[in-house]
Amino acid sequence: MPTIDERFARLATDHAPGQEVRQAFADGDVALRGEPIAGTPVDFSHGDVNPTAFAPTPGSLEEFVAGVHRGASQAYTEYRGDAALRALMAERLARFTGAPVSGVDDLIITPGTQGALFLALGALVNPGDRVAIVRPDYFANRKIVEFLGGVVVPVRMDYLSRDTGAGLDLDQLEAAFRSGVKTFLFSNPNNPAGVVYTPEEVARIASLATTHGVSVVVDQLYSRLLYAGNSFTHLRAADIDADLVVTIMGPSKTESLSGYRLGTAFGAARIIDRMEKLQAIVSLRAPAYSQAVLRTWFAEPDGWLEERIAAHQALRDDLLAVFAGAPGMRVRSPQAGSYLFPRLPRLDVPLHHFVRALRVQAGVTVTPGIEFSPDSTDSIRLNFSQNHEAAVNAVRRIAEMVDRYRADVGAVLAG
Amino acid sequence: MPTIDERFARLATDHAPGQEVRQAFADGDVALRGEPIAGTPVDFSHGDVNPTAFAPTPGSLEEFVAGVHRGASQAYTEYRGDAALRALMAERLARFTGAPVSGVDDLIITPGTQGALFLALGALVNPGDRVAIVRPDYFANRKIVEFLGGVVVPVRMDYLSRDTGAGLDLDQLEAAFRSGVKTFLFSNPNNPAGVVYTPEEVARIASLATTHGVSVVVDQLYSRLLYAGNSFTHLRAADIDADLVVTIMGPSKTESLSGYRLGTAFGAARIIDRMEKLQAIVSLRAPAYSQAVLRTWFAEPDGWLEERIAAHQALRDDLLAVFAGAPGMRVRSPQAGSYLFPRLPRLDVPLHHFVRALRVQAGVTVTPGIEFSPDSTDSIRLNFSQNHEAAVNAVRRIAEMVDRYRADVGAVLAG
Repeated sequence: MPTIDERFARLATDHAPGQEVRQAFADGDVALRGEPIAGTPVDFSHGDVNPTAFAPTPGSLEEFVAGVHRGASQAYTEYRGDAALRALMAERLARFTGAPVSGVDDLIITPGTQGALFLALGALVNPGDRVAIVRPDYFANRKIVEFLGGVVVPVRMDYLSRDTGAGLDLDQLEAAFRSGVKTFLFSNPNNPAGVVYTPEEVARIASLATTHGVSVVVDQLYSRLLYAGNSFTHLRAADIDADLVVTIMGPSKTESLSGYRLGTAFGAARIIDRMEKLQAIVSLRAPAYSQAVLRTWFAEPDGWLEERIAAHQALRDDLLAVFAGAPGMRVRSPQAGSYLFPRLPRLDVPLHHFVRALRVQAGVTVTPGIEFSPDSTDSIRLNFSQNHEAAVNAVRRIAEMVDRYRADVGAVLAG
Repeated sequence: MPTIDERFARLATDHAPGQEVRQAFADGDVALRGEPIAGTPVDFSHGDVNPTAFAPTPGSLEEFVAGVHRGASQAYTEYRGDAALRALMAERLARFTGAPVSGVDDLIITPGTQGALFLALGALVNPGDRVAIVRPDYFANRKIVEFLGGVVVPVRMDYLSRDTGAGLDLDQLEAAFRSGVKTFLFSNPNNPAGVVYTPEEVARIASLATTHGVSVVVDQLYSRLLYAGNSFTHLRAADIDADLVVTIMGPSKTESLSGYRLGTAFGAARIIDRMEKLQAIVSLRAPAYSQAVLRTWFAEPDGWLEERIAAHQALRDDLLAVFAGAPGMRVRSPQAGSYLFPRLPRLDVPLHHFVRALRVQAGVTVTPGIEFSPDSTDSIRLNFSQNHEAAVNAVRRIAEMVDRYRADVGAVLAG
């Protein structure tokens, strides 16, 4: 049994997205090269919800204020959320995902999708249980499993060397399930790589889970922000035992409602029921006044979603063009979501050092790849839901900084 | 090692405050006596934040809206909360509690005080650790410890047979500490009993904790709502190793800001630091836009707090007068907070049955005592932060219902 100090050492957040400001208190060791590079600072660790980038859904603040004016009935709902609102969400999410959802039994409203993830795993993972986790995947997945005393069983995903599908190693997943894994957690679209699982990949996951009785938590936070030419397959609508699946979604990304801290989880009633019991002691109840803002979700003005997707797609393409001009940089074009996960050429400084230099010298904040997989020591993650012009210029600065710190400077100059 | 089903069976929320509506799905077994008793329904399971009862602090919604308009800087703060806001809160809380607080290192903003409680215990309790818990005390305390795999070591509190102090059995507390307890958790003012620890009780806790190196989490949620003639002693300002104490407070009760889901924890930097790491995986970051509402806390309009205390005190006294006229009912007058915890005379039905009958027949929702202690099988908890007239009438209905279900009906009629 690890001590509590050892457990928390594994939960370090010094390099987690959004925590960069705290590094200043610990690290004075960056040996910088060259002069600062001027430009509007861009924080790619999360999306920008300012009006100059991607503002929250129209009408969201008005719904919040209406919730406050409803008073006690909105402040104190069932722990799993207001019943009428759950019925409404269940109907919309059933339509979106193509499989039934009961608002009474199958859905819980949580403080953010992070809250939903923690509750779902808390409802499934007993100390010592084996949990399959994709590499790379959302940075908190591993940490939640470890905090709960679970054993992480990693499964490779070769996202970079293909144009379609996620590239999950399905044979390795099967071997993991055969080894006694009880729970499988993955994001689709994948965070950080922006790739979408094919119908065949989803069908194989469904079949393996049913065969081995493995509960699956699928984080579909970005499934609405799908780019032209791609399609999305919902695991819960595939051929899978419905009692094994919980899907997590929320309005914090595509809809830029992250400031309201809203998430939902829906699926197997036995798991949702436990999640509510856990919510009772973790945060007591669903976000109170904020819940009202969910009324805007899947009910945005006509054309709003299409416009939002188009704006992100145009930005994606401009950023990919900048990366394409940077020698030695490899990046897969995201099929959905607002993440880019470029692999850098070999640098002659450690990745954390480069990431700090990028922030200090170029005003660009990114998240180091190893937050997402211990193998991703040469990648950085960017959330490109940002002001278009500022983001393009910031990625140009990344390219310039890579040139300063690359291991093969001579080769490039010669080339 | 218990199975996950066994673990969640111990987290049952069917009788927890606010969950009464879900009982209707499970229980059809109430054999009712007599006719319904008319009256405005009152839900004593939580305070009423409607304008007809105790509305949120003036200016709170305006601060929230200003937070939304600040945009990304308010939506995405450090996980532990916005730095400037933490500095402000640290200054105010240091003044209130009489001991220093560093906004940089010693304070975290959480989604509700429930969130702070979970994080504080999560930061301290390793599986197998012994944790001292008061009986009776806040219903989630035991459940959090059990979820984390800790071992609950109960400590008696004889609140009923005295007029002053909490009545904690300090010798039993010392024995618990000697038995290897590593963490002690208690609420002061006590929830559910409304009693306040004397300076002597607090000093003894401080001395025992320092001697035995026990970390102490003190939930002071109600410490501002202190009635005339009482004084409050802050553990963190007592003679105690500061590295052992975390204090939890929030604006959800006295200030009726529960709908914004805000809490704070402050004290030992080593514990706050772990709490932030845990917050990163439990809810990612401090409540985003809502944080702005904290600016109103400890900065209410002149006279507002005094008026709020006076209104609760008047209501407390009127309710105590009704209980005093009900034969066989025993209740201690609360020194702080808005809870009453009357002990009922012997009934001839189980407590859960009576509580359901009270709700169905008399429109009065209360929380059964056994949520707070397995010994409190004859008590009910009322949060009397309600509309004055409705609350008084509802307590009259409680008295009438007790008469219908009491075991000694004959004796009372004869008397």
